[in-house]
Amino acid sequence: MRTIVAVDIGGTQLRAAAYKQNQIQPFTQKRVETKADEPDTFGRLIKLLEDIWPKNETVHAIGVSSPGPLDPHAGVIMSPPNIKEWRDFPITAKLTQHFGIPSYLDNDANLAGLAEWKFGAGREHRNILYLTVSTGVGGGVIIEDRLLQGYHGLAAELGHITVQADGPLCGCGQQGHLESYSSGTGIERFVTEQLRAGRDSILHLNAHAKLSAHTISEAAKKGDALSIEAYAIAGKYLGIGVANFLHAFDPSIVIFGGGVSQSGSLLFDPFETSLKERVIHPRYLEGLVITKAELGDDAGLLGARALAELKLQI
Amino acid sequence: MRTIVAVDIGGTQLRAAAYKQNQIQPFTQKRVETKADEPDTFGRLIKLLEDIWPKNETVHAIGVSSPGPLDPHAGVIMSPPNIKEWRDFPITAKLTQHFGIPSYLDNDANLAGLAEWKFGAGREHRNILYLTVSTGVGGGVIIEDRLLQGYHGLAAELGHITVQADGPLCGCGQQGHLESYSSGTGIERFVTEQLRAGRDSILHLNAHAKLSAHTISEAAKKGDALSIEAYAIAGKYLGIGVANFLHAFDPSIVIFGGGVSQSGSLLFDPFETSLKERVIHPRYLEGLVITKAELGDDAGLLGARALAELKLQI
Repeated sequence: MRTIVAVDIGGTQLRAAAYKQNQIQPFTQKRVETKADEPDTFGRLIKLLEDIWPKNETVHAIGVSSPGPLDPHAGVIMSPPNIKEWRDFPITAKLTQHFGIPSYLDNDANLAGLAEWKFGAGREHRNILYLTVSTGVGGGVIIEDRLLQGYHGLAAELGHITVQADGPLCGCGQQGHLESYSSGTGIERFVTEQLRAGRDSILHLNAHAKLSAHTISEAAKKGDALSIEAYAIAGKYLGIGVANFLHAFDPSIVIFGGGVSQSGSLLFDPFETSLKERVIHPRYLEGLVITKAELGDDAGLLGARALAELKLQI
Repeated sequence: MRTIVAVDIGGTQLRAAAYKQNQIQPFTQKRVETKADEPDTFGRLIKLLEDIWPKNETVHAIGVSSPGPLDPHAGVIMSPPNIKEWRDFPITAKLTQHFGIPSYLDNDANLAGLAEWKFGAGREHRNILYLTVSTGVGGGVIIEDRLLQGYHGLAAELGHITVQADGPLCGCGQQGHLESYSSGTGIERFVTEQLRAGRDSILHLNAHAKLSAHTISEAAKKGDALSIEAYAIAGKYLGIGVANFLHAFDPSIVIFGGGVSQSGSLLFDPFETSLKERVIHPRYLEGLVITKAELGDDAGLLGARALAELKLQI
């Protein structure tokens, strides 16, 4: 029976856990603060791994989930948004050097999709579209039981698909991406712009507290027309984006993760209307399951574990 | 050594050829008119196959290329644009019943991509984006040496990706698809609209002769500003579309087939400018080959053959 150590590198927390093959629950786990602004994040990671390392077990591989962009083939984290000292950081080579076992890397959204395929909402499916709708929009795609990685390992960057070429600015600096409409950031941008333009709302701009997608959803539930419209736009473009992904990948299940995907009918009613309008053939929707992610905060760890298990073919 | 019979069903011609494993050239081949409006197209197809059927060879499988939409898993042609009598037509079951050997089906764009992967411009590549730019825009995608088909067999409908949600009408009835900008039809639509609006050009609307993408490209080469602009718009949106496909699939090669892709710098200069602007990370372009299809009119036959060979694992 193989044992895997999984690592989930986040902007605020580093998490690690050790898993025995065929057991869902980790038998050791721990989390520490990332302290991304302080030097030697890798030292803190090694310490964390040593803390959870199984005493009486042989560990066969390490799987690592990290924010991108990264190169999963080379095992190199290119330019993580938070950990500035990790520019072109060869994390798998360094872990392998330290622990003497194979290490594997991929980005958090891909691995959340892989985790849902192996342990979560996508267990019965071979063709999966996973979308995380949160501060940004990220994607993970499984095609015939294989993780879509691409030649450079940069496939499934599904938040950065242009749906309106002359649309609003995205966090990445480009225009009219799915993320610029349907992410938390996109929802906040729309409401902020409208308030600045003098639009009536129960929400107000405040120099001390930024509007959040959550605040806006609360206002929408109180009937605030501007907030309802913000979610309607996010849902409309999410439907257009998912129609694009059905035409591209033709999955049997669409799984939504991320905080904004908890907004319920506020987001998903306009999403469904838009998706049905935009799909070019009703057959894409036949038997298509649209559902929520099951694994929550553990998706990164379980995806890192699933990646290592895939690579070891167990 | 295995022998495959390949069939290419087109709106104007039915083609068939017999291939020996490891030989590029067919040893028998023939083409006849489809006569799509006359009854018993299947009877003409059977006659054609009997004409080219190798006399002293065992044929191991039949591969069929057809316009979509179709279901490659079930071997059913759903609603071909030309052959009206083939609604939900179970072509592989009928061929297998008649000839007693396995038959396989996929759509023309997918199979042109598969043919380029096995025999053409994509031979050295494992991750391929094939786009045919012609009357419409079609796609074929190879991921790690496998044809992307999808759950319903409807993947890679890449002409029908929304790039401008409020954009012009597409042939499919939807709005703002890549095809509505970058196909021959899209180029003709733009020029026609502009001429109707009184725009100056060496081209004129004529009740007897429809403008064609070819006529427009000739006018552009003579310096006609409207025609140049029409191709510039087609190229710009083609760049936006291909950027989307790089972000989705991350291929190592983009292969262009179809008549409109013969337009040279008229289309491809604005395409390249737009692609470079729209790609979210320069790494997608590292080592990326952008080239033309090599197989021309034989892509359908060779793709049908490649599909049958893949299924037989030879």
